[in-house]
Formats: sequence, structure tokens, C-alpha cells
Amino acid sequence: MKRKKIKAALLGLGTVGGGVYKLIQRRRDVMEQTIGAQLEIVKILVHDLHRKREGVDVSLLTDNWKEILENEEIEIVIEVIGGIEPAKTMILQALRAGKHVVTANKDLIAEQGRELLSAAEENHTDLLFEASVAGGIPIIRPLKQCLAANEITDVVGIVNGTTNYILTKMFEENMSFESALEKAKELGYAEADPTADIEGLDAGRKVAIMASIAFHTRVVFGNVYTEGITKITEKDIAYAKELDCVIKLLGVAHNTADGIEVGVYPMLLKKEHPLASVRDSFNAVFVHGDAVDDAMFYGRGAGEFPTASAVAGDVIDVARDIQYGCTGRISCTCYKETLIKEFQEVENKFFLRMQVKNQPGVLACITQIFGNHKVSIVRVVQKYVEDTKAELVIVTDKVKEGYIKNALKELEELEDVYEISSVIRAYL
Amino acid sequence: MKRKKIKAALLGLGTVGGGVYKLIQRRRDVMEQTIGAQLEIVKILVHDLHRKREGVDVSLLTDNWKEILENEEIEIVIEVIGGIEPAKTMILQALRAGKHVVTANKDLIAEQGRELLSAAEENHTDLLFEASVAGGIPIIRPLKQCLAANEITDVVGIVNGTTNYILTKMFEENMSFESALEKAKELGYAEADPTADIEGLDAGRKVAIMASIAFHTRVVFGNVYTEGITKITEKDIAYAKELDCVIKLLGVAHNTADGIEVGVYPMLLKKEHPLASVRDSFNAVFVHGDAVDDAMFYGRGAGEFPTASAVAGDVIDVARDIQYGCTGRISCTCYKETLIKEFQEVENKFFLRMQVKNQPGVLACITQIFGNHKVSIVRVVQKYVEDTKAELVIVTDKVKEGYIKNALKELEELEDVYEISSVIRAYL
Repeated sequence: MKRKKIKAALLGLGTVGGGVYKLIQRRRDVMEQTIGAQLEIVKILVHDLHRKREGVDVSLLTDNWKEILENEEIEIVIEVIGGIEPAKTMILQALRAGKHVVTANKDLIAEQGRELLSAAEENHTDLLFEASVAGGIPIIRPLKQCLAANEITDVVGIVNGTTNYILTKMFEENMSFESALEKAKELGYAEADPTADIEGLDAGRKVAIMASIAFHTRVVFGNVYTEGITKITEKDIAYAKELDCVIKLLGVAHNTADGIEVGVYPMLLKKEHPLASVRDSFNAVFVHGDAVDDAMFYGRGAGEFPTASAVAGDVIDVARDIQYGCTGRISCTCYKETLIKEFQEVENKFFLRMQVKNQPGVLACITQIFGNHKVSIVRVVQKYVEDTKAELVIVTDKVKEGYIKNALKELEELEDVYEISSVIRAYL
Repeated sequence: MKRKKIKAALLGLGTVGGGVYKLIQRRRDVMEQTIGAQLEIVKILVHDLHRKREGVDVSLLTDNWKEILENEEIEIVIEVIGGIEPAKTMILQALRAGKHVVTANKDLIAEQGRELLSAAEENHTDLLFEASVAGGIPIIRPLKQCLAANEITDVVGIVNGTTNYILTKMFEENMSFESALEKAKELGYAEADPTADIEGLDAGRKVAIMASIAFHTRVVFGNVYTEGITKITEKDIAYAKELDCVIKLLGVAHNTADGIEVGVYPMLLKKEHPLASVRDSFNAVFVHGDAVDDAMFYGRGAGEFPTASAVAGDVIDVARDIQYGCTGRISCTCYKETLIKEFQEVENKFFLRMQVKNQPGVLACITQIFGNHKVSIVRVVQKYVEDTKAELVIVTDKVKEGYIKNALKELEELEDVYEISSVIRAYL
């Protein structure tokens, strides 16, 4: 096979872009040996041509997208700008021009995946996006290829490093949410505006992408119920410990007999579960398939080089496909249209904490209301008493979200219930 | 693209073979949708044509290898017989006849991988073997593709479920090695002759395969130092707990500045290490690369369906390669010839336990001998005293295997050293 030179352009030279550029330079020899072709980044699209960028050949920089799009020698476009536009337009134009695309853009894939993959399919081009979920952790390729013979029923992941760092600090060092968030900001794990992380939006996009692949049905970000970790208190953590549990922000996707469930929310998780020992800013994705049984993929979910590792792995795959003339080999695998459940139909167990009047008959009244709303109670403990006030900790059996919501609404209206302090789902 | 029918033959119909057959039947629709081709098993090679086999179409069975080899319609051969011969001859003949091969055969790949992969390369055929390491866990494809942009320096795995089950029982339920082995036999985890598992030979083959791929250098089973778990006692487990460690049988492969280190041996491992929480018969492989940082792959390392999951995943990949005309796309990646270190040159930390005379001056004498042999001591605790006898627990710094071996030999000759009870490496 003749040694070909494959030319690529990089869109964006931020943290990830810089990592990709450096890594591809660093691995020239490996690429040549394993692909049988030379891979070269010949253009880099940036906003500001004049900003100083260490270690980057200035002659590669351009601020003119057309210079890349219209250059027929460029076969691969690596998009690491992020966000919907202009990334979407550029990717579509690149695909339609017959170029292959590698992207790390979770927002885009989670919201417009179908349109982009269709464009790739029509043009027999590769569109790979391993880096869009869980950074450096191989998860897309394992789901699409290694586990392809499985009917996958569960994908449950810790897919946001910032919140996992915060929850680890709260759990291991008894920090408050606020102090842990401050610490995460200091270390650069959390952004100045941490909303997308702590409210579960970032994790929600990743869940949409993983569910689409695992269940062969297009799931978009809008389908994913999201709830963050801002309401988790030190008391919740302490009770979780008593129950031999940790609290983790989980991205949850189940393929049940009556439809797909997708959501992101904090959950109590038994200490023995493989996800429970995932600490600090690490990510992990737990998968259950009918043949493989339980499997888990663990690693760094963000960062310059871990993300670049996934992007560059995809680039190598595309280059190999070009070399062997088989681009477009693996495209969209969403050939089903499984129903996605309304969130109120989803069933979960719950951990509840509430402040009630310390008086005979109150518990009977509360359990009666739960019973009326089809909520089975597994465990009730009166945890703390202060004259007229008692704290109740209740663990329920699996119950539909709609039912528990109604039960809690009715309880909130009771005079004897002072406060419903915590409502946390439990994966027990 | 036209929908083609791809025909495959299965060699062997034992536990794994049966799983592969059932799984491929079960996933007909998925295969058609994702590959764009129908996949059918048209022949099954068995020893005994007359044995009753539930759920298998008798007309597929044959005991004549030539019937498969000479059938030009059969494009894929799935080898799940195991062992070196006749599997090796059959695989070579199949490859030379232009057929693609999927195998779960770790013995063969670990010992004859180069010859088989060369034959595949010469004939532009696929030879895939994901199931040969860690059963259902995706590890070969992640190493060859997803992490291809990394310089991988460490692959450390729990790759034998039997021994991990035994060590888990010893650790969590204070069982002796013997009782735990009995329990493993009862559950079918350990074979009647458990030597290959408990002496680390099975793990050694998997380490050879993983090291070859990770370090781009052919490592064969003969290069791997192996030591089993038969000498681990309840006392070692108790001391490990005191040091906040677990004991695991690890397959270890490091790519250091002065060569490749490969071995299998029990090790003390800090409880926080991701491998420490891998319990029961589960397997996991921990990988460190310069870009991805730490990553881990966890799941079932054996069993009918987990192994079939990996085999069938490979078969789907081959079928897709046939469909897209790109077979032979990923073959041998061992293009380097990195030196493999002699085991006595390998450096490890050690946990040592010995019975010595309880008398002033003995410790000085022992530490002097360690010093003479370049062994640095990090910690010495006198754990137990009984009149004239004391138990010493010593943790060393990193030291070459050759040096510690010499030191221990000299200590054994001392009159004041009654017994060297444990020598366990430590990954601290």
C-alpha cells in the first residue's frame, strides 16, 4: 500500500484544540506505522490571527473558513470550537464537500446529531465524536462496535467531573456544597458560571448521546430530565453514609419494556456498586447488556490531553478509513424508534427527609397519604427530635415520578409537615 | 449498498461456542441493520456428531474440517476450540484460503501471535481476538484504536476471575485460601485442576497479548514472569488491611525507559486504587497513557455470554469490513522491538513477613544485610512477640528483584531468622 499524506484542518485552538495539535505532532511516527499514511495538520482556524500561541507554526493559522472548506487537499476537519454555531454550519459544509469530520462537540451532537449523521451518510464521509462523551474514556466505539452484539438495557454514568469532585469533597471531607464548589473553582474544575455543570445540563447532553447509540433510537437533549446537585446538604451525605451509600450525580438511561428512560439527577448508590468508588473529577460509564452482563469504562472526562486523546484516536481511525477506502463505514445506528417515556412515568426509589410535628398520629397520617398515592414505604426512621419537631427519613420502593410528586404535594399542604427537606432518588 | 449474505463457520461448540451460536441467532436483526448484511452460521465443526445439542440445527454440524476450509462461500471462521493444536493449523489454513478469522484463543495468540498475524497480513484478511483477553471487556479494540494516539506506559489488570474470587472471599470473609478455592470449585469458577488459574499462567497469557498491543512490541508468554496466589495467608490479608491495602493477583506490564517489564504476581494495592474495588469474579484492566492519563475497563472476564459478546462483536466488525471491502485494515501493530527486561532487573516495592529471634541486635543485623544488598526499608514493625520469637513486617522501597532475592537468601541462612513467611510485591 502506498504511503499517502493525509491533510487535516483544525477548527479552534483553545484548550482541547491545543492538545490535539500537540498530540498529533507528538505521534507522527506511530501514525505512520499504524495507519500506513502520514497525517498532517495544514490549517488551523482561529478567531484572532495575532494572538501569541506557543509551539504553533504561525503560517498554519487562518481566520477564513473558506480557505479550509475550498481546499480540496484537506480531507479531515477537526472541530473543537464547541457550541452550536458556527460549528454546525461548518461541519455540514465540510461533510457536503466530501470531507470527514471529527468533533468533540457534545452540545451539537446531543441536539443535532441526526441531521449531521445524515449528511455524513449521504456523502459517504466519516463523522466521529468519541470525545463528545466522557472525554478520554473510550465509550462510543465500545458501544457501537465491541458491544454491538448486545441488547443494552442500562447506561448509567458519572459523566461530569466538576460535580463528582464536589460530591467527593462533601463525602470524604464533610465540606458544604458551597465550599466544595469554591474549591472546584480554585482548581479550575468549575467555571466562573458553573450552571451547566452543577445543574446537570452538561451530563444531560452526554446521556442523550449515549442513549441514542445504546438503544438505537435518537434521543435528544430535550428528552432528558435534568436535576443538579445544589440542594444536596451535609445531612443528606451523613444519612447516605448510614445507609452504606454514597451520593453521585448520575446520568441514567434505561431501555425498559415500556420505553426509554433518560435523566440526570443525584442518586444514593450502594458502596459496592462499581460507580461508587469513582472519586474526584474522574468519570465512569456503567453499561449492562444481555450478553456482556455488567461492564464499566473509567477515566478522565475532561482536560486538554484526555480529550485530545479521544479526538486524535478518531482522527487516526478516519485516516485509516481513507487509506483503506472505507469511509462512512460506521454511521448512524439509530434504526429504531423506541418510545421515550414521559418523565412522570419513570419509576425510581426515593430517599426522603422531612421535618414534621412530633405528635402521635402524624406518622399514620403521612403513611396514609403515601399509600393513597401508591407509594410503598420500605423504611421509616425518626432521626431527630427537638421538643415539638421530629426529622423523618423515609426510603420508598420503586414508584412512578408522577405518583410521588402528587404525594409530596399533598404532604406539603399538611399543617403537621413543616418542611420536605430532601427528595433524592436511590439506586439500591 | 446491496444486502449481502455473509456466511460463517464455527469451530467448536463448547460453552463459548454455544454462546456465540445463540447470540448470533438472537441478534440477526441488529446485524442486518448495522452491517447492512445478513450474517449466517452455515457450518459448525464438532468432535462428536451424535451428541445431543439443544437448540442447534443438526444439519449444520460436521466433523470434517475440509468441508469448511474448501467451502468458498464461507468467509468467516470463528475458532473457539482453544489450545494450540489443531486450532493453529486450522486458523493458518483458513487465513491462507482468504477467510477471515475471529478467535477467543489466548494460548495461541500469546504464543504464536506473530505468525498468525503475519499470515493474516499476507492474505489481506482480518484476524480479530478481542475475546482472548478479559472475556467480554472491550480492551483490544480500545488499545488499538481509541487510545492509538497515546504512548501507553502501564497496563495493569485483574485478568483472572477465579483468583479474584478467591482473594475477595479471603479478604471479605476471612476465608483461608483452601476454603475459598473449594468454594470457587463448587460455583464452577475453578476447574478440577486449577493450576493455570491459581499459578497465574492464564493471566500471564493475557498480559503477553496486552503488552504486545500496548507497547507495539511482540511479547510472548515465555517473557512473562508468573507467580500465583497459593502462598497468600490469612495473616497477609490481615496485615494488608492494616496498611489500608487489598491483595490482588495483578497482570503487570510497564514500558519503562530501560525496557518492558511483564509479570503476574499477587500485589498489595492501596484501597483507593480503582483496581482495589474490583470484587468477586470480575476483571478489570487499568491503563495509563501520556494523553488519556488513567483509564480502566471493567467487566466479566469469562463465561458463556460475556465471552460470546466479545466474539460476536468481532464477527460483526469483520462482516462490516467485508461489506465495505476493507478487510485487513487493522493487523499487527508491533512495529517496534523494545527490549524486554530480565525479571531480576525489574523494580518493585516489597511487603515482607518473617519470624526472627526476639533478641537485641537481631534487627540491626537484618537491616544491615538489606542495606548491603541495596534494599531500602520504608517501614519495620515488630508485630507479635512470643517469648523468644518475634514477627517482623517490613515494607521496602523500590528495589531490583535480583537484589532482594540475594538479600533474602542471605537472611535465610542466618540462625536468628527462623522463617521468611511472606514475600509479596506492593503497588503503593
